[in-house]
Amino acid sequence: MEKQTFIVEGMSCNHCKNAVETAVGALPGVKTAEVDLAAKQLTVEFDASILSIARIKSAIEEQGYDVA
Amino acid sequence: MEKQTFIVEGMSCNHCKNAVETAVGALPGVKTAEVDLAAKQLTVEFDASILSIARIKSAIEEQGYDVA
Repeated sequence: MEKQTFIVEGMSCNHCKNAVETAVGALPGVKTAEVDLAAKQLTVEFDASILSIARIKSAIEEQGYDVA
Repeated sequence: MEKQTFIVEGMSCNHCKNAVETAVGALPGVKTAEVDLAAKQLTVEFDASILSIARIKSAIEEQGYDVA
């Protein structure tokens, strides 16, 4: 299990937080996905043997946010 | 049919716009409910014989926003 923090631009409210957490949380291999709105951060615990960082970034971008 | 514009504080993104439009749009007597995010405005066309302004304000506040 790996833990990675992403800087995500454009999350402005709890709807955004939920959208990102739900989208990333639904990826296979994700154990936890938690957004800190004030810090503009998403922290993901995941199984790196079945899920890539690129796929996580894509899931964030598909929700309409930019990953730094 | 009556048309009323509300100033709504706290709507920050399209999720917020959708939440307010959906909640108000679901009220009986509402014909249209449209948010202008940049202007912080919600404009509602409704049948004032079956729906009160107070009820519209409540629906907005139930979504977590303040009506000026």
